[in-house]
Amino acid sequence: MTKTKKEKNNSVGVVETKLFTFAGQLNLVSGEKLGPVTLAYETYGSLNKDKSNAILVLHALSGDAHAAGIYNGQTDTGWWEDLIGPGKAFDTNRYFMICSNVIGGCKGSTGPSSVNPAMGKPYALDFPFITVADMVEAQRHLIDHLGIEKLLCVAGGSMGGMQVLQWVASYPERVKSAIPIATTLKHSPQQIAFNEVIRQSIMADPAWREGNYYEYGQPEKGLSVARMIGHITFMSDQSMEEKFSRRLKSDHFSFGFDADFEVEGYLRYRGANFVKRFDANSYLYITKAIDYFDLSGGKLIPHGKTIDTRFLIISFKSDWLYPPHQSQDIVRALKRRHVDATYCELTTTYGHDAFLIEVEEQTTLIKHFLDKTFNGYLVTGHYGN
Amino acid sequence: MTKTKKEKNNSVGVVETKLFTFAGQLNLVSGEKLGPVTLAYETYGSLNKDKSNAILVLHALSGDAHAAGIYNGQTDTGWWEDLIGPGKAFDTNRYFMICSNVIGGCKGSTGPSSVNPAMGKPYALDFPFITVADMVEAQRHLIDHLGIEKLLCVAGGSMGGMQVLQWVASYPERVKSAIPIATTLKHSPQQIAFNEVIRQSIMADPAWREGNYYEYGQPEKGLSVARMIGHITFMSDQSMEEKFSRRLKSDHFSFGFDADFEVEGYLRYRGANFVKRFDANSYLYITKAIDYFDLSGGKLIPHGKTIDTRFLIISFKSDWLYPPHQSQDIVRALKRRHVDATYCELTTTYGHDAFLIEVEEQTTLIKHFLDKTFNGYLVTGHYGN
Repeated sequence: MTKTKKEKNNSVGVVETKLFTFAGQLNLVSGEKLGPVTLAYETYGSLNKDKSNAILVLHALSGDAHAAGIYNGQTDTGWWEDLIGPGKAFDTNRYFMICSNVIGGCKGSTGPSSVNPAMGKPYALDFPFITVADMVEAQRHLIDHLGIEKLLCVAGGSMGGMQVLQWVASYPERVKSAIPIATTLKHSPQQIAFNEVIRQSIMADPAWREGNYYEYGQPEKGLSVARMIGHITFMSDQSMEEKFSRRLKSDHFSFGFDADFEVEGYLRYRGANFVKRFDANSYLYITKAIDYFDLSGGKLIPHGKTIDTRFLIISFKSDWLYPPHQSQDIVRALKRRHVDATYCELTTTYGHDAFLIEVEEQTTLIKHFLDKTFNGYLVTGHYGN
Repeated sequence: MTKTKKEKNNSVGVVETKLFTFAGQLNLVSGEKLGPVTLAYETYGSLNKDKSNAILVLHALSGDAHAAGIYNGQTDTGWWEDLIGPGKAFDTNRYFMICSNVIGGCKGSTGPSSVNPAMGKPYALDFPFITVADMVEAQRHLIDHLGIEKLLCVAGGSMGGMQVLQWVASYPERVKSAIPIATTLKHSPQQIAFNEVIRQSIMADPAWREGNYYEYGQPEKGLSVARMIGHITFMSDQSMEEKFSRRLKSDHFSFGFDADFEVEGYLRYRGANFVKRFDANSYLYITKAIDYFDLSGGKLIPHGKTIDTRFLIISFKSDWLYPPHQSQDIVRALKRRHVDATYCELTTTYGHDAFLIEVEEQTTLIKHFLDKTFNGYLVTGHYGN
């Protein structure tokens, strides 16, 4: 079980990742089957008696099940550490938090780097093609396993937000409320274009070996360049200006092809670092899954259907990867079906990264939204740290 | 001499590229020397007696001297065909147009793919580092050679616009008017970041061979990915939506890593095509030159200096690579020095590409601006086709 030792900074404390393997096979959207399927997941807080306080948070492209706390003996906190914990936006004193790594990933859930039981070696490109709907279907098995009939909330940013929307499309009766952040109903051609260049960069590297690199090591150069492209899209013009401006790494130009500017050094570092922590084939599969994602045109909530899921939709003004107009499209799709939806566009310079960084305003919005959803009324005054 | 055979579409007709090699060496900003230096250039129209009708147009990153007309027996028109010709924005019935390929390039001017006379083989990375100021210094030799003391105008978009600004910074007394389009006083960290990823993509390809690939062929994969990145930045979110939306190349998803969407096929095509026409090392040198470019902070026109160059500055609302606020910075720098400057932000969905595409409004603006500069008053009524 997850320990909820309260630390000075209101962390959930030491946590561990659990594995859940479900029987049978997953029928994928592509028509193929995948099995056995293992999901890596973590939980924080305690499930209440009537199992009405469970919240599922869903991670972005390169995320994992480790959303909050620290592993024993380590110091790295979870990716949504600022928002999950005692007294935080997702208050673990009140809610039972669940986060699971997506299928197709490389952080414990079944993906292309997992051993294919039929072959006794990693799937590589024999891994079947997956979609966001398939990710959600796997999570549904986990939620069943945990004995939760209805989730108080599903929440997530970026690709996590797509999974939120997919949960509502697939299982609206099991989702009391939803918080899609910095996301979209469908990938635009520009978003597809960036993902395609990311994929081409990986596949251009001879070390990729048509996906069969596991005994040789990652296609480091191609994967590193791919991640550098991604990183540019996560930040805004302005946040790069604030963080780097045109500052040089040394006191003079190199007049050559070294990294002259700090921003170049930063991108090289982020690229090299990514190679150590993320599987190249997973990057291919997951980018393609989100390119296929499309709940536009009435696919989120079919015409004539009514749902009682409440929505809080958040976007960020400086996010040009998933710009506010895409969140507004979600709001329009919901309003057309008379769904209770609140929309907030936050002013920030952080770009797409804001969903991980812009803590204060998100905390206020999410806290009050969850209060209202959980209690039916607004609880105030007991959130001091 | 350039033939100016008038064709149905008001083309300058059949043209040829000329070469000019100047004696001595170019003293580069880096402290190194380059020589001999050859410039490829074209001219259209006729120089008048007092040599007061010469206009220099300057090309963007991957451009060349072929700005207008067609080569004998070929059909490809120049890169600014829509703006240069009889009766067009740059009216070859009135003006003598000059366009030269930049040094560092690969379209006839001396660059890394040129033979290093000291070694009898291509320079490759022995080519000295060049800056935008060096490009302009080489052009100054050409303008001297053509016997032109003062240019009626220098004009160009993107990197061409940087050269326009550099001409004014280096030789304000030789520039009667200037038209910098969709450009900037300095590369921002985001712009540097995109160029750095482009360079890393090329250099990640083992076929790049530290620049010594000339006997083996281009680093095709890396260069292709590099250009795909560039192409995304040239278009806008909206122009991609209009051109491609989420249309598929076939009637079904591939559930694999083929190009499913038209936008993917388009980018792959543009990448592959670029490999055939542009030298990878030139891409490295020129992107670095524009990253170094910085005429901010009073470097365009030093404090206390007065110049009488007139300016027309054009930007495009949907251009997110060189966004309008960067053009506004140019205007501010000029107004602070009491320079005559007109600024126009054109509404278009084409993104950065608009400087090549958005013909009608640019034609009106440039035509009238040149009239006023050339004649001192506005000539109207004789521009019908």
